[in-house]
Order: sequence, then structure tokens, then C-alpha cells
Amino acid sequence: MDSPPIRRVSILGCGLIGTSIALALRGTGIHVALSDRDSQAVATARRMGAGVALTPGAPAADVVVVATPPSTVVGVLRDAQDRGLGAVYTDVASTKARIVAEAERAGCDLTTYVPGHPMAGAEFSGPGAARPDLFVGRQWMLSPHRGTPLGSVRTVAEMVAACGARHRIVPADQHDQLAAVISHAPHLVSAALAARFADADRATLSLMGRGLQDVTRVAGGDPGLWCDILQQNAEPVAAVLDAVVRELAAAADALRGGGRSASSAALADLLARGRQGRERIVGVSSAAADAKDMIAA
Amino acid sequence: MDSPPIRRVSILGCGLIGTSIALALRGTGIHVALSDRDSQAVATARRMGAGVALTPGAPAADVVVVATPPSTVVGVLRDAQDRGLGAVYTDVASTKARIVAEAERAGCDLTTYVPGHPMAGAEFSGPGAARPDLFVGRQWMLSPHRGTPLGSVRTVAEMVAACGARHRIVPADQHDQLAAVISHAPHLVSAALAARFADADRATLSLMGRGLQDVTRVAGGDPGLWCDILQQNAEPVAAVLDAVVRELAAAADALRGGGRSASSAALADLLARGRQGRERIVGVSSAAADAKDMIAA
Repeated sequence: MDSPPIRRVSILGCGLIGTSIALALRGTGIHVALSDRDSQAVATARRMGAGVALTPGAPAADVVVVATPPSTVVGVLRDAQDRGLGAVYTDVASTKARIVAEAERAGCDLTTYVPGHPMAGAEFSGPGAARPDLFVGRQWMLSPHRGTPLGSVRTVAEMVAACGARHRIVPADQHDQLAAVISHAPHLVSAALAARFADADRATLSLMGRGLQDVTRVAGGDPGLWCDILQQNAEPVAAVLDAVVRELAAAADALRGGGRSASSAALADLLARGRQGRERIVGVSSAAADAKDMIAA
Repeated sequence: MDSPPIRRVSILGCGLIGTSIALALRGTGIHVALSDRDSQAVATARRMGAGVALTPGAPAADVVVVATPPSTVVGVLRDAQDRGLGAVYTDVASTKARIVAEAERAGCDLTTYVPGHPMAGAEFSGPGAARPDLFVGRQWMLSPHRGTPLGSVRTVAEMVAACGARHRIVPADQHDQLAAVISHAPHLVSAALAARFADADRATLSLMGRGLQDVTRVAGGDPGLWCDILQQNAEPVAAVLDAVVRELAAAADALRGGGRSASSAALADLLARGRQGRERIVGVSSAAADAKDMIAA
């Protein structure tokens, strides 16, 4: 990296992700300025040591991070660029293609904007759930426009490294397909299962074990934020849902097939492919955990 | 309880559940005899202190526990009753209605058979994964036939209490509907998601976070055992899958509705019901964990 070191970062949006980035950067001595339309969120983040409040007339930042919900990113970005808040801009939304297209249409300066998405999250939201190590050992996708200069990308990559994460350049469309299958569609599937219990009585609930706990955990996420995310990545998510619907409809048919050999085979095939997928997930996950331990050690 | 105390229990099937019951009962001083068609499983369970091998001519047990896969329960039960292995019999299969019906058809003695299902499990199977505290604070459903004498039920309930669990009498049909929604259908949904990753490359897998980890965990279960369980509880599971399929198909339609207000409302409604269900699950789960802590303390 031949880009100059990052000294100042401004974070626009003090939720879980924005505040965690701020805490991580503060840990490396970078100056962090915080902003949020909710002054309580800024106050909470400041109390946690995430930085100072962004004030009018403050020096331009090396990187401005837009850490607001997906549908608001372009508006906040455009405003920040108009005010000249920084040299380079990025965001942390978990969808990319639509945001990049809208940023272009809205006249944002794409030479200084490097769309990003840290692959980390937590069960709870808000600044109070933030952690400085949230990104350690995790990947952080960057989906720059073809015309964006390498220097802008390098500056954002340097900030990613300062958070303990590894950046990876992925085209926006490909990013969105990956995010759909590893995160967005699973969220809806989890919600569809959890919804079976929206009116469940205590007698039913008292019977469940860890399996249902795990499979419904992500359904606890903020419905408003998730509605926004899902609509910003509509077609890739719908395509994954189509595949899951086909699998489950076929499984229901197979169950009703009454033990005929073709029905049993269809069910056994789904379970075997499920176990195979789980083994791949666990295998890579163990490797990632090992890598994280090494970094933390 | 006015039933005489349990002194001897025989466990037929030294998998996770059978061996965990054996370990729990040994901890209260009950004599436990072990049997399995796989002599290695018996040897492993014995080494763990779960009891002695069941030998021909051993005294009849107070309770015989059939801890084999669902589709084999009736055959093992019938054989055990024919050999007079015990005074009272139970099983631990996670389906009940079909087993009870088949037991009746097969001429099993229903006056001494109390079908059971401990609501506990673990990610791994086999005797090596067994734990004496697997059932502590958990519920254990019993689904006796209408004609079964109360004395038989009391004897099995006493064994359940010796394992640290609370018994609950539930009709077999109702048991199966509950098991379908809290365990069997979620297993298939988890498998259908995990199957998306059966051929996933490392680059894709390296991006995932804890959400996908959690939602696919139960898909790691033994496909053969689960195929058996699901087919034994076919219609209740298929009915839950139908509901999940309807939800997910509607969500895919809503996503393709392109942000029209009715589409947004449908998506928001599913996410809100999912969060509501998750809150109920977490609320009761916390209460259950508290109760478990109290018992353990």
C-alpha cells in the first residue's frame, strides 16, 4: 500500500456497525468523528470511547463511512459529498448493486466512493451492542465502480485492515447474490419458521430444545431494517427463496408419498445434501475461527 | 407416587439418548443393564460408567427402555415383552402416534407399555456424546394408551424424575403435532437451506457469519435417523412445511412486487410475526434456563 496513512475518519450513523468501526479505529489511534440523526446514539457511542461528535467546520476526513440503513445510503452520501466531509467515502450496507446504481443516478462522485460491506453482525442492534473486535478476522467486501481510481479503493482497504478485517473486491451483482444466499434468504426462512410461534402458548414453547432456538435466532433482527435490506436485494433473495420453496414442497410431497421408495429416496437425498452443505459450512467456519484465534493471539 | 422405587432398568439401544438415560440413572444408584446390536456401542457405554451388559437370565427390570430408531421400536418392544425382560416398558422415539398404532397391531402388551419422548438432544449422536445431565430440567412427554393402567405410567414417570426431567402426559396425536412444529419441520427447513451449500466453494463459504451457522446447525444430524423420524410423522410435518412454503412463496412474490405498498406490507408482516415468534421462543427459553439453573444449583 502506497497510500498515506489514515488519520481521520468520520462515521455517519452510530448503530451497531458504525460504532463498532469507530471503536476498532480508535484502538489504532485514528481520530474518529461521529454523527447520527439521533443525538442519543452519538452520546452512547461517545461514552463508549468511540470518538468525538462531528462538528461543522471540522477538518475533512480521510474516509467518511456512511453507516445508515440501505435505502438511506445514497441520500446521506450525496449530502456528505456536497458538504466535502472527506476525501474518500464508503458505506456498510448489506446490499450493493441497487445502491451503486442509485448513487450514479443521483450524481454522487463515484471516483471517491467505494461501496463496502463488512461480513459481520450481531444478534442485537444499536451502539450499545458495538464491539471493537466485531470485524477481526472477518471479510469485508468492496464493490467499487469500474471507473473508481485505485487510490480510493486502497484508502478504504487500509481502513478495513485497521479494523482487523480482510478486504475482498467483488462486483456488486455478485456481492448481492452471495449476500442473498448466505444471509438475506436465511433471514426470511428463519422468520417463516419463527412466525409459527407468534401465538404459541407456554405449554408448546416449554417443549422446545436448542434446535429451534438456533434456527430462529436471526429472526430476532429489527424488522424495519431487514425489510429495507431485503427490498434492496429483491431478485437475488427471491431466487434463493424459490429454490428453498421447491425443496420443501417436494419434501412435503415425499412425506405424503407414504414410504414409497421414490418418496423415501427424495427425502433421503434432501437430508444428505443438507448434511453435506452443513459439513462444508462447519469446515470452513472452523478454519475461519482458527484464523481469528491466531490474529487475536 | 405410591409406586415402589425403581431398582433395575434395562436400556435397549446405546445411542446418545439411551446412554444418557443410563448415565443419569447410574448417578442415582439404580442398577442399569445395557444392550445394543452393536457390541462396540455397549462397550463404549460401559467404559463411560453407564452400567453393565445385559446378560441372558438377568433378573427382570422394573423398567425397560427401548432407545432405538423410531421404525425399529415396535419390533424391539415386542421381542422384549416376549422375553419378559421387564415389568414396564417405554421408548424414547420422537414420534408417537404411528408407533402406538403399530404396537397395538403387532400384539404388544399395552398395559405395560408407556410410550415416551424426552425433549432433549444434542448435535452429535452415539454413546460417546452422552451426558448424565442431558435431561435435567427438560420435559419428557408420555403418551400412554387409554387402557394403560396408571401404575405403569407412574413407574415410567418415576424413572423420568430420576433423570432430572419433568414428565407430561400428552395424547400421541397431539405429541406428534408439537414435535412436527418444534423439531421435525425445522430440521427439514434447515436442511433445505444447508443444501444450498452442498457444492459451495471456499470463497463463498468464507463470507458467512454466525447467522447461517445457527440456522443450519440441526441439518448436521444423521440423515438415516432423520429420514426415519420424518416418515414416522409424515402428515404433521408436511402440514407445517405447507405453511412455511406458503410464507416463503408469498415473500418471494412480495419481493418481486417492486416496493408496491401491498408488497412491502406483506414482507413487513412476515418479519414482524417472525420477530414476535422469536421473542416468545426466547422468553420461554430464558425461563426454562432459569429453572434448569435452579435445579442444577
